[in-house]
Amino acid sequence: MSYVKKLKCLLCSAEYKPEDVKYTCPKCGNDGILEVIYDYKEIKNHLSKNSLKQNNLFDMWRYLPLLPVNDQSKIGPQEVGGTPLYEPERIKKDLGVNFLWIKDDGRNPTASLKDRASAIAVVKAQELDEPTLTCASTGNAASSLAGACASLGLKSYIFVPKTAPRAKIAQLLVFGSNVFAVNGTYDEAFDLSIKATEEFGWYNRNTAFNPYMVEGKKTVALEIIEQMNFDVPDYVFVPVGDGCIISGVAKGYRDMFNLGFIDKIPKLVAVQAKGCKPIVDAVNGDGKVHFVVPHTIADSIAVGIPRNRIMAVRDVKESTGFGISVSDDEILGTIKYLGSIQGIFAEPAGATGFAGFVKSIRQGIISKNDKVVVLITGNGLKDVESAIRAGGEPLIIDPNIDAVKKALKND
Amino acid sequence: MSYVKKLKCLLCSAEYKPEDVKYTCPKCGNDGILEVIYDYKEIKNHLSKNSLKQNNLFDMWRYLPLLPVNDQSKIGPQEVGGTPLYEPERIKKDLGVNFLWIKDDGRNPTASLKDRASAIAVVKAQELDEPTLTCASTGNAASSLAGACASLGLKSYIFVPKTAPRAKIAQLLVFGSNVFAVNGTYDEAFDLSIKATEEFGWYNRNTAFNPYMVEGKKTVALEIIEQMNFDVPDYVFVPVGDGCIISGVAKGYRDMFNLGFIDKIPKLVAVQAKGCKPIVDAVNGDGKVHFVVPHTIADSIAVGIPRNRIMAVRDVKESTGFGISVSDDEILGTIKYLGSIQGIFAEPAGATGFAGFVKSIRQGIISKNDKVVVLITGNGLKDVESAIRAGGEPLIIDPNIDAVKKALKND
Repeated sequence: MSYVKKLKCLLCSAEYKPEDVKYTCPKCGNDGILEVIYDYKEIKNHLSKNSLKQNNLFDMWRYLPLLPVNDQSKIGPQEVGGTPLYEPERIKKDLGVNFLWIKDDGRNPTASLKDRASAIAVVKAQELDEPTLTCASTGNAASSLAGACASLGLKSYIFVPKTAPRAKIAQLLVFGSNVFAVNGTYDEAFDLSIKATEEFGWYNRNTAFNPYMVEGKKTVALEIIEQMNFDVPDYVFVPVGDGCIISGVAKGYRDMFNLGFIDKIPKLVAVQAKGCKPIVDAVNGDGKVHFVVPHTIADSIAVGIPRNRIMAVRDVKESTGFGISVSDDEILGTIKYLGSIQGIFAEPAGATGFAGFVKSIRQGIISKNDKVVVLITGNGLKDVESAIRAGGEPLIIDPNIDAVKKALKND
Repeated sequence: MSYVKKLKCLLCSAEYKPEDVKYTCPKCGNDGILEVIYDYKEIKNHLSKNSLKQNNLFDMWRYLPLLPVNDQSKIGPQEVGGTPLYEPERIKKDLGVNFLWIKDDGRNPTASLKDRASAIAVVKAQELDEPTLTCASTGNAASSLAGACASLGLKSYIFVPKTAPRAKIAQLLVFGSNVFAVNGTYDEAFDLSIKATEEFGWYNRNTAFNPYMVEGKKTVALEIIEQMNFDVPDYVFVPVGDGCIISGVAKGYRDMFNLGFIDKIPKLVAVQAKGCKPIVDAVNGDGKVHFVVPHTIADSIAVGIPRNRIMAVRDVKESTGFGISVSDDEILGTIKYLGSIQGIFAEPAGATGFAGFVKSIRQGIISKNDKVVVLITGNGLKDVESAIRAGGEPLIIDPNIDAVKKALKND
């Protein structure tokens, strides 16, 4: 059994037993997202810095006492998490910053951080004996859910905007998912998937609807904390779409704080694309989120109606962090920068957090002596066409040495 | 300093000090590939089953005493290796086999096994003070070298056939490599890169030319051995192009055998595409390799002139293994099978080994009680178009529930 004590509504603070509510607060409707509250006192009996040191599981399940899992036998076979935290010496030198870490979460099974949430979704579905799952997604949550379902023989119905990058759609199809490519935005796909859940009774994995997704995503922070030997950075930069990942990061740090393993929470920085920055504006303003029509190449964060907006804005504000936006050109430039200086390949949304970090340094919002962690949320292979836009086209030559010489002369 | 005793020519058995020869045997020319011979007696003083248990490095460098590294400070920052070995319960049930493991090496930094070799190449180049590297590649060795070079600030000139999948070319460009997309085959690109090496003095990472690449690739076998707790399977299925990976697998098992950590070598099975099977024919015949013009969608193993043919054929024959070929349709079917039944996404060449395994079971060449490991060498995101061919196109619908209902009715 898990150490989940209750689910608590973000809006009205009503509390529920986990077995009594499936998705959002019955009183508040779909905006009444439920937060998972743990019995930390009990968790302390099963988790300590020392027990972590002895633990030789290196994927996300090493944090099992902090996860909402009632039946361990339902955990899927994929190895999720355990991704590298790099201290990128060449970037530090180039930018003149002294304390920087990059968490490369594109190294997950389906190449994005979303695998951490989907790994929880398939456990919860099985615990409820539900063999069919659904979600709406810009692409990564979808492919991660499709992969997790495939690994366990569960059926999935997935709603993605038809404009999702081809690589993400390819993953869905190979994983044998039933894919609805929606002739509309992610926001429309989201609403449609909720309707389909009501209509067909499928188990819904949607971000900021299913209360357990933040719990999966928080494992990225739990790993960062351990990888930094329980030292807490000043800032964590996170690309933001729905705002579920940044709340996951907040939750991970809060968990470790509540357990007494760390002594503070870092400032969280929400980074969005200039063409879609409702959370950034809210965080830097009065906290109210105004919906927009997204215009950005960063498809994973092209979210005009951020479903986790209330929690995300609260988490950033509570952390005394801030928001910053970057242009599509800055995002593309960052893809090339991360790749060419450090060999890290990020998709556009994945690179957005780093673009925000660079901008924050350049604008003097943060200092070169601040300790900073930047989260990379998805692998560049997820969006090949944007990568080509970032990297340029190759030089085509005939197979003879004179062609090489000529090319080098023009270099 | 490393425990490399000497380099030994595969053809004439001449022996050289590592500092005396850079690539192939001066007497035998480019077919005189050099094998790296270690001082196992000395290695035993620094590596034991117990020391491995205590070692908390989980990437390929945990095997440092078995690697040709003189200067540890030259090791790059990428986390290479440490990839999952899955025991795929759903596949075992579906195929009715009792002992099966899948090594998913698409989880490496640039999403292929080749990262293991490139990680060694950049160390050797730096040890020789060579800041510029080159290689010819069907795509994966190229992107791995480009990534490794970027992570260390080394320059790379890469030769790939211009038909390489766009995802691989995108990686090269993002990693800031100087890319020559050769208007010809991989075999022509290979010859051109050797000429360029002679002409411009770049450090060459080519498979079966640079003696150290097998040493990097063998770490996949070292990991499998440990992950299976030093139990040796009956068969290891490996997709084969140049034949360097399968020789790496052989070397890894031989290393562990020479150290007394295991008591036998598994039978190695070379799997190739029907449209390009020179090694399979040689292994199953008189051992002589006849060159072909490759015709297969599995671009990573579309190698008509396998550069490591002599060593690969020797290694398979010595192991008393065999060769088997599979059609492109079987490869595409396997991509879909692995994805939809187990959530593992492989590129065409990556899936080829598994396709050969299934065929071997179906044809009764191996038994359902044999212990089998199958190597998956590259992630499916490396070749999106083949994945779409394997997975099918998604269904496009308007964003309303009636469209969903209609689609389900037609399902």
